[in-house]
Amino acid sequence: MTPQRVTLITLGVTDLRRSGAFYAALGWVPHPASQKGVTFYQMHGAVLGLFGLADLAADQGRPDATLGTGAMTLAQNFRTEAEVDTAFSAALAAGATGLKAPEKVFWGGYSGYYADPDGHVWEVAMNPSWPLADDGSLTLP
Amino acid sequence: MTPQRVTLITLGVTDLRRSGAFYAALGWVPHPASQKGVTFYQMHGAVLGLFGLADLAADQGRPDATLGTGAMTLAQNFRTEAEVDTAFSAALAAGATGLKAPEKVFWGGYSGYYADPDGHVWEVAMNPSWPLADDGSLTLP
Repeated sequence: MTPQRVTLITLGVTDLRRSGAFYAALGWVPHPASQKGVTFYQMHGAVLGLFGLADLAADQGRPDATLGTGAMTLAQNFRTEAEVDTAFSAALAAGATGLKAPEKVFWGGYSGYYADPDGHVWEVAMNPSWPLADDGSLTLP
Repeated sequence: MTPQRVTLITLGVTDLRRSGAFYAALGWVPHPASQKGVTFYQMHGAVLGLFGLADLAADQGRPDATLGTGAMTLAQNFRTEAEVDTAFSAALAAGATGLKAPEKVFWGGYSGYYADPDGHVWEVAMNPSWPLADDGSLTLP
């Protein structure tokens, strides 16, 4: 049995400096626990880390593996369509590749997608059925 | 600017029934907000979703893309090595592919990796420098 828990999300990246600059341009601030070779960002109750792609493959016990992206998507939920548009524009300005500009979607909300410099996919969305807590966390109603 | 926030992690899967059975074997319970075609699990302040791989590619605005796995890793932190071992064994028993059996690692902790039925990579780890809150959430010291 395992708890329904994710405490750390690690993104394997080609160039830590490039990726750090990208997330900095989005306004993300590295935590002092960051070290040479790994950058950590505190989120609400969990951490996002940037780590060299080859280092990550080695850490996974398969140093020769080619790791792929796209099939796991990270989403940021927002309270309004305007906030989604702002986040999407900020990502493009920071050098993201736009995959789908935000638009109204079949499930009643508003959603767009972009990819970070290594192809990690982020969704920016507003779901009227999913109110966010004051701290930005999401508990399903 | 975007907040340092992940509210939803979506795993693209080949077979929702197979993946649902895998996470059920780990003790995960779908949230009632789950619908035909998408399964949600509540975590602390964020949600994990299972969604068809082709549906996810289409949702990303690139229906013909082949989405890859491995370069984004999800970690579960635990308080003891024994808890890590238990989680790793439970995953193998549920049908996960072991990538690296838990072992002591250079950063002073204990860590193993497995892949779920679609190749999504999970780390199970104990980091003595990263105490968990009572609810299992992680705030860096």
